[in-house]
Amino acid sequence: VPNKLPKVGTTIFTVMSQLALEHQAVNLGQGFPDFPVPQRLVDELARAMAEGKNQYAPMTGIPALRQAIAAKTARCYGRAVDADAEVTVTSGASEAIFNAILALVSPGEEVIVLDPCYDCYEPAIDLAGAIPVHVPLDPVDFSVDWQRVRDAITPRTRMLMVNTPHNPSGAMFTADDMAALADLLRGTDIILLSDEVYEHIIFDGRRHESVLRYPELAERSVVVSSFGKTYHCTGWKIGYAIAPPKLSAEFRKVHQYNTFCSFAPAQWAFAAMIVQEPAHYDELGAFYQAKRDRFREQLLGTRLKPLPVPGGYFQLVDYSAVSDLPDAEFCRWLTIEKGVAAIPLSPFYETPPAGQRLARLCFAKVESTLDAAIERLARI
Amino acid sequence: VPNKLPKVGTTIFTVMSQLALEHQAVNLGQGFPDFPVPQRLVDELARAMAEGKNQYAPMTGIPALRQAIAAKTARCYGRAVDADAEVTVTSGASEAIFNAILALVSPGEEVIVLDPCYDCYEPAIDLAGAIPVHVPLDPVDFSVDWQRVRDAITPRTRMLMVNTPHNPSGAMFTADDMAALADLLRGTDIILLSDEVYEHIIFDGRRHESVLRYPELAERSVVVSSFGKTYHCTGWKIGYAIAPPKLSAEFRKVHQYNTFCSFAPAQWAFAAMIVQEPAHYDELGAFYQAKRDRFREQLLGTRLKPLPVPGGYFQLVDYSAVSDLPDAEFCRWLTIEKGVAAIPLSPFYETPPAGQRLARLCFAKVESTLDAAIERLARI
Ligand SMILES: CSCCC(=O)C(=O)O
Ligand SMILES: CSCCC(=O)C(=O)O
Repeated sequence: VPNKLPKVGTTIFTVMSQLALEHQAVNLGQGFPDFPVPQRLVDELARAMAEGKNQYAPMTGIPALRQAIAAKTARCYGRAVDADAEVTVTSGASEAIFNAILALVSPGEEVIVLDPCYDCYEPAIDLAGAIPVHVPLDPVDFSVDWQRVRDAITPRTRMLMVNTPHNPSGAMFTADDMAALADLLRGTDIILLSDEVYEHIIFDGRRHESVLRYPELAERSVVVSSFGKTYHCTGWKIGYAIAPPKLSAEFRKVHQYNTFCSFAPAQWAFAAMIVQEPAHYDELGAFYQAKRDRFREQLLGTRLKPLPVPGGYFQLVDYSAVSDLPDAEFCRWLTIEKGVAAIPLSPFYETPPAGQRLARLCFAKVESTLDAAIERLARI
Repeated sequence: VPNKLPKVGTTIFTVMSQLALEHQAVNLGQGFPDFPVPQRLVDELARAMAEGKNQYAPMTGIPALRQAIAAKTARCYGRAVDADAEVTVTSGASEAIFNAILALVSPGEEVIVLDPCYDCYEPAIDLAGAIPVHVPLDPVDFSVDWQRVRDAITPRTRMLMVNTPHNPSGAMFTADDMAALADLLRGTDIILLSDEVYEHIIFDGRRHESVLRYPELAERSVVVSSFGKTYHCTGWKIGYAIAPPKLSAEFRKVHQYNTFCSFAPAQWAFAAMIVQEPAHYDELGAFYQAKRDRFREQLLGTRLKPLPVPGGYFQLVDYSAVSDLPDAEFCRWLTIEKGVAAIPLSPFYETPPAGQRLARLCFAKVESTLDAAIERLARI
């Protein structure tokens, strides 16, 4: 049997969710909300099914949804995107990332990724026959050292992948980062793949520095987002990619023959939701900030030290006061012995920083879930 | 901008659906039913949403659905498959085909496809860096000349793709085909990718010769099916792949980082449907046979000559009594001038047979749609 991805095992999210189930642990591992999807979305999906919208959607997504995404993009980031030529609906952000890499990166080319990064990046690069080049983020605040990125560029660099707000750390790019990024790419033909799935989960009045705000960057970029994160429905698997017409054309060649189109009734539901409740995504930051603040406050009563969380729905904790175990072992121990599932950071790295003692806790949970977790964590 | 798939344009299905829309043609082109999804499926999907089953499903699919697929496979084909190790739910059969090729075929290897074939096969082969080797089916009855397939095998052949019931022709493999196929592959390490999405749409008491009936074949095969075809919901995009544990393990490495999982509420709905209405798929042949027979009868009143349809929901017609146009032009003309959209066969071929005058009509339609089409076709 061929083995094209020898490094790939079961993703850490599945491993920890299974372990949580086996040991009846409170699952703060895999990132998903445990509260309901907005009722309007459920109702609109049911309506779309009843209206018979159950056959193939257009390959690029239904026009109403692409137009709603374009309108939202204009409103949020001041960028006018062409709903027909620049927006493609996908079966989750993962498919979008996968398509972008397969469509745009050729064998032997290099793709720069910033570690720690989400674990789906590297397998797609490997399948494209390309070479992942790992540049570490700062181990303390997860900022980018743009000079290190510059040093990693070679004539074979085809793509740079960035992610803001950042999974697992929650770090967010600043306007200075965007300037440095533009500076770095100017004069090259490097494509930027920007994973912005947590775009609306942002705190303390920060501004999401979408690549779409910066014409110079946007014209060379594929920007990926996810309705699962914004609308509490990670299992619906609808996301999208925004890219200039020429990049979208290549992206769509792969999408057309990968999943072709995504679950049609949900596309109608999201189109209705975006138009009818535009406040939803503006309010999402405040919604999650309340959860974050409460959870962090509670964590002060434990021996886990919370790191800052500028955005996203993950809280990193430094557990070095509690244990000297490497993070993977610590998270297993925490799940099995202490009843709280967490995600170690090492799977997000090619080479994890020596001695790093961090675990990731998902706070996209109702208060009772977080309370139950805190009660257990407080006993450590 | 890179261009890794220079041969890929917009798929013929999208092209003809758009043309049909523009010219208010009766759309018998792209293959999708125009009648409702079974109500139970809609109800069960709504129930799953209401029960909060809106977060990530397990990467391989929810256990209840995998078990239902395994039970159905045992019942239909007498093969006991392991629901955990051998069944993977995907975002449509296309994703399954795409994953299988990317996971199992390496650059420089050859994949044999039988022309005419569905248009998603070759782009996936190209993206894998592999070489498609086209072997033509018989131009009259679309049977396989197994000696020609044998002649196409080289030391670099990694995969053979087959499709029964066949799109676009409806041809079905016989027991003799399966014996020839087993004979051909014996002693090689060629992987068989069997596209069986029309498995339950079979006529005149024929038996679907699933690869799963033949242990010698099944142990080297990825078998792909689609709920969209069986349950009239092509826009729900849920399919699955069955393969032995070692092949499934490689397949899942790609699936895990492609779409990760498929729309979760629909998985619950299909699990319930398969268990509660097992008769649905047994009755599907009769349901479509009535449509086929009525449509063929009506076609006798036109100058289009219907070819035999052993399975699937497509009717090939020979239009040589009407026109000498090549098929792509004929289908445009039929759509624009005569108001009936059809699919030409040439896009299913690397080298279409010279002088072939065939068009494909989808009869997965309510009687009034087919009547409207016939009324227009009778005027030609
Ligand atoms: C596809 S499971 C992973 C979910 C997620 O985004 C995370 O936990 O980081
Ligand atoms: C994905 S659109 C094509 C639908 C289909 O299977 C066909 O028409 O052959």
